[in-house]
Amino acid sequence: MTDIPELQERLRDFAERRDWKQFHSPKNLSMALIVEAGELAEHFQWLTQDESFNLPDDKLQDVGEELADIFVYLVRLADQLGIDLPEAVDRKIALNEAKYPADLVRGSAKKYSEY
Amino acid sequence: MTDIPELQERLRDFAERRDWKQFHSPKNLSMALIVEAGELAEHFQWLTQDESFNLPDDKLQDVGEELADIFVYLVRLADQLGIDLPEAVDRKIALNEAKYPADLVRGSAKKYSEY
Amino acid sequence: MTDIPELQERLRDFAERRDWKQFHSPKNLSMALIVEAGELAEHFQWLTQDESFNLPDDKLQDVGEELADIFVYLVRLADQLGIDLPEAVDRKIALNEAKYPADLVRGSAKKYSEY
Amino acid sequence: MTDIPELQERLRDFAERRDWKQFHSPKNLSMALIVEAGELAEHFQWLTQDESFNLPDDKLQDVGEELADIFVYLVRLADQLGIDLPEAVDRKIALNEAKYPADLVRGSAKKYSEY
Repeated sequence: MTDIPELQERLRDFAERRDWKQFHSPKNLSMALIVEAGELAEHFQWLTQDESFNLPDDKLQDVGEELADIFVYLVRLADQLGIDLPEAVDRKIALNEAKYPADLVRGSAKKYSEY
Repeated sequence: MTDIPELQERLRDFAERRDWKQFHSPKNLSMALIVEAGELAEHFQWLTQDESFNLPDDKLQDVGEELADIFVYLVRLADQLGIDLPEAVDRKIALNEAKYPADLVRGSAKKYSEY
Repeated sequence: MTDIPELQERLRDFAERRDWKQFHSPKNLSMALIVEAGELAEHFQWLTQDESFNLPDDKLQDVGEELADIFVYLVRLADQLGIDLPEAVDRKIALNEAKYPADLVRGSAKKYSEY
Repeated sequence: MTDIPELQERLRDFAERRDWKQFHSPKNLSMALIVEAGELAEHFQWLTQDESFNLPDDKLQDVGEELADIFVYLVRLADQLGIDLPEAVDRKIALNEAKYPADLVRGSAKKYSEY
């Protein structure tokens, strides 16, 4: 993929050629996304934090696929709702810069540590 | 944002300046991601499919923020694991092209309709 | 199972005999629970509301297993945290009785319709 | 609550008096359940495993409420699908007894450690 608008178009085309638009309501896509997020979390559920940094190669491959699945549903959902995803990300980061000033929250996960 | 590698760097810097890398284990990030996916799904849980296409403006704004949050954790997670997210997406789409041939699965959600 | 306290004890014993208490931190159990909730949601993600009432027998069997898995993690989590689950349920229902008076919210899913 | 069948009836009556049965399709309930599971996981996302055992009182209270919410949707879902939840739990535990023999899996989270 080169960028998000191009990916968005590619996925829309993929769904249309399969006549899947009928299934891709925002409601259904939000379910599909969280289902994939569950498959992602499954890889980590019994690991320690340290272990979660050091996945064996085959597991890393699987995790990469889950990330891709989530990404795809994210882009489909933004497309179906007419949301400009890159713009939404920019806006959210600006909000978080203001909400969590670096010198005030350093090293604390209290209520912060969004990202 | 311009592209994913640039976003990745920006978010890494954001976390480092707040000394949050300690909280950002892949395990924790996978939890944070699914928590955000739950907040996304909450907007749609009682809606009909049709209603989910026609959100009022304030709700659409909120949904955009949830999508941004998910995106951010997705990119952070890929970064912490050294996964090339755009490449993973390309690979997954190629897999799905092979798995769901357009003429065979048209209009069916049986076991297909991934995207 | 006869009742929840008895189930709780049975599951604790099950975990202890396998030396699994080390994995059953509340954090890990909350992940395991949401992973199972994702497997549950997967069965319904592409269905219409009507279809979701009329599952074929084999799918109904699978859904029953997912419900059981969620229940088990719920009871394990309550046990590990010393939470009295039946009491928590009673308290929550009383709260909801007060929050959603039957004659005021009839037929509306606006912000109510918790259960 | 005294037992699950009694709780089931109480919740059904609660929904009927509010005319909420229309919203309580199995599909919607599976979404509501995972949304609550996300709220549960949120409490634990940045904690260490040790910290997750030692919640302050107010957080423990909140976690108890989330557990109750999940339980309620679980029972509603079983009711709407005609699944006998206690029986499903018994069957699942028997399956797991066979799948994870205590002397073979002791202390391992490899692919086991379901509960």
